[in-house]
Amino acid sequence: MDNSLISEYDSQNLDKLVRNVVQLLELGGYTVSTAESCTGGLLSQLITSVPGASAVFEGGFCTYSNRMKTKLLNVPEYELEHFGAVSSQVALSMAKGLKASTGADVCVSVTGIAGPGGGTAEKPVGTVWFGFSAFGREFTRLPELWTLADKSRGNIRLAAAAFAFSVIEEILLEDFQ
Amino acid sequence: MDNSLISEYDSQNLDKLVRNVVQLLELGGYTVSTAESCTGGLLSQLITSVPGASAVFEGGFCTYSNRMKTKLLNVPEYELEHFGAVSSQVALSMAKGLKASTGADVCVSVTGIAGPGGGTAEKPVGTVWFGFSAFGREFTRLPELWTLADKSRGNIRLAAAAFAFSVIEEILLEDFQ
Repeated sequence: MDNSLISEYDSQNLDKLVRNVVQLLELGGYTVSTAESCTGGLLSQLITSVPGASAVFEGGFCTYSNRMKTKLLNVPEYELEHFGAVSSQVALSMAKGLKASTGADVCVSVTGIAGPGGGTAEKPVGTVWFGFSAFGREFTRLPELWTLADKSRGNIRLAAAAFAFSVIEEILLEDFQ
Repeated sequence: MDNSLISEYDSQNLDKLVRNVVQLLELGGYTVSTAESCTGGLLSQLITSVPGASAVFEGGFCTYSNRMKTKLLNVPEYELEHFGAVSSQVALSMAKGLKASTGADVCVSVTGIAGPGGGTAEKPVGTVWFGFSAFGREFTRLPELWTLADKSRGNIRLAAAAFAFSVIEEILLEDFQ
């Protein structure tokens, strides 16, 4: 998903994307689970806004603090100290911890800087790492959300959600091929 | 909070309420945590939409399935079997489990039937139990959300969020007296 797509989403497109993802999960008999930091529950809220989501979603975590990332998802403390909460390493560990806890087929984690505070030269507002553990594959992604024209907290969180669901859709469509 | 208030909320009022709650928590140096079933992350998403929420919110759970309620929040299986997931007993156990896990000053749980399916004569769509564990007090509430004119899934979830934050506001204002 390139950034032009992210900036072009609107709430209607996002709802459609989420409904499509839930439908693909239903078709495949798969489950999804979420571990959210900067999106704070937006992903799980979007999934469960679809009636009948209980067939594909058992639950998720909102691990906002470092302590919760370690306590609930077993993210190693040294990763938080050495790489920071907003890093590929922590995103991956969150996804792995989520998989270990829920056993969902598709596990997605989000950790980033939604702003307005917290940005640095190295990690500006809009730096959002995504971790995935799905069908035996584990990987992370870093879309360039810091290049969005609208860098408001709300927009970065929505763009992050749109990105996460787009990748999940990709994963599921690959699975059906 | 009577139902006239619930049905009169709009998204702007809800945002204002959430900001006020976050501010009250900041003023008191208190933390809040959420365990959500039918709202699916809406409460945590609303709290974390306020910049700087990390000072008052460490994390929360979205326990959508019975399995997750037991696994993540230690809700006894017999309560789920005997009283059902949408019950005062389970709402209280969710709040207690949340308190045990996060140690937050104010713990709130939500478990209900947001519809459109799942309603029965005994527990119609809009039956939503709330559990609270705050400052040593534990209690549950059952606002009559089934009497709302707009019983759409989205509206019941928003009304549930508005109710939860209203009670939290009450608790915090009592604490400041």
